[in-house]
Amino acid sequence: MIRLYASEMSGNAHKVRMALAFLGFAWDERATDAAARQSDAFRAINPMAQIPAYVEDDFVLRDSQAILAFLAARHRPGEWDGHSPEERGAIMVWLSHSANEIFNGPALLRAERLFGWSVDTARAQAVTDRILPIVEAHLAARDWLVGDRLTIADLAASPYLALAPDGGIDLEQWPAIRDWTRRIAALPDFPAMPGWPAEGGA
Amino acid sequence: MIRLYASEMSGNAHKVRMALAFLGFAWDERATDAAARQSDAFRAINPMAQIPAYVEDDFVLRDSQAILAFLAARHRPGEWDGHSPEERGAIMVWLSHSANEIFNGPALLRAERLFGWSVDTARAQAVTDRILPIVEAHLAARDWLVGDRLTIADLAASPYLALAPDGGIDLEQWPAIRDWTRRIAALPDFPAMPGWPAEGGA
Repeated sequence: MIRLYASEMSGNAHKVRMALAFLGFAWDERATDAAARQSDAFRAINPMAQIPAYVEDDFVLRDSQAILAFLAARHRPGEWDGHSPEERGAIMVWLSHSANEIFNGPALLRAERLFGWSVDTARAQAVTDRILPIVEAHLAARDWLVGDRLTIADLAASPYLALAPDGGIDLEQWPAIRDWTRRIAALPDFPAMPGWPAEGGA
Repeated sequence: MIRLYASEMSGNAHKVRMALAFLGFAWDERATDAAARQSDAFRAINPMAQIPAYVEDDFVLRDSQAILAFLAARHRPGEWDGHSPEERGAIMVWLSHSANEIFNGPALLRAERLFGWSVDTARAQAVTDRILPIVEAHLAARDWLVGDRLTIADLAASPYLALAPDGGIDLEQWPAIRDWTRRIAALPDFPAMPGWPAEGGA
């Protein structure tokens, strides 16, 4: 049985929930709040004290991008993680952006507003202003980040962009990003979360 | 012919130099300073205006982690990027740390001192204080980050940890990290760069 340490509002956890739902798997989700993440028991699972963490039998893995890479390699090799070295590299570009700019930009602006995290707002806004035009220009000419199908690039990059309005970003200004997040939310078995799909908007 | 846009002092560029050198390849290195990175010609190669960027015939790839993933998949599949889905995931943990914490911690402290970058020093120090004990504890019991061999996890994570003294971090306080950076620098064909191996220290 797959156990996923997560929280309802975490976009990082949602990356993994999306992958598991699209794979058609069941999982045991353990709601793990900020206090629980600091416990010795949880730090034994993830010394970074962060969610998500993935446990299956005696296999333990932290980091949302890493869990996606593992699930792709095991269950959708090629399709989700690249049919060629060139695609593997192109997908990795978006995993890096997800770990760095998309997290340190839109995700932190959201965490400040929703969860009261202490954030360097000016820096998070600057990172956001830097990455959004890159994503928008990339998606203006294509439906998916890499190739002509969903890959873990889309799974990694989309939650904190779809949830960017929680941090005060108006996705009407970024129509290619907005349409791509709607495209993902329209896939069969997409798991909804608060804020995605957006209320009213879809 | 492989063309690598880089700069002598860039740890991110050095990740790719190490991979190419260990693969035994020749490459055409184009020194690309801060002004050149902002040019339209370079932005056509990398819209993020960052080095490294990799060009081989009509294939163009940005992001140091992505270039490592591409080179591994093409030239050292399994050995460098994981023999199993579990190893693929474990390696990805360190690619994420390299893109986020190791860059936004030790690399930014170094960039502030060496290059005069405008850095939120307190935040970069906090990120550094968070990631160094994780890496130290992980390496205390093993020679390489994943498995019993060099992988792209080591190539991605090591330069900015080896160069941390440039940012005021004393690696004598982190002996497992220090020994691991020496282990890498002792590999055949390791390309030296200013600061690694450390003068006198090795």
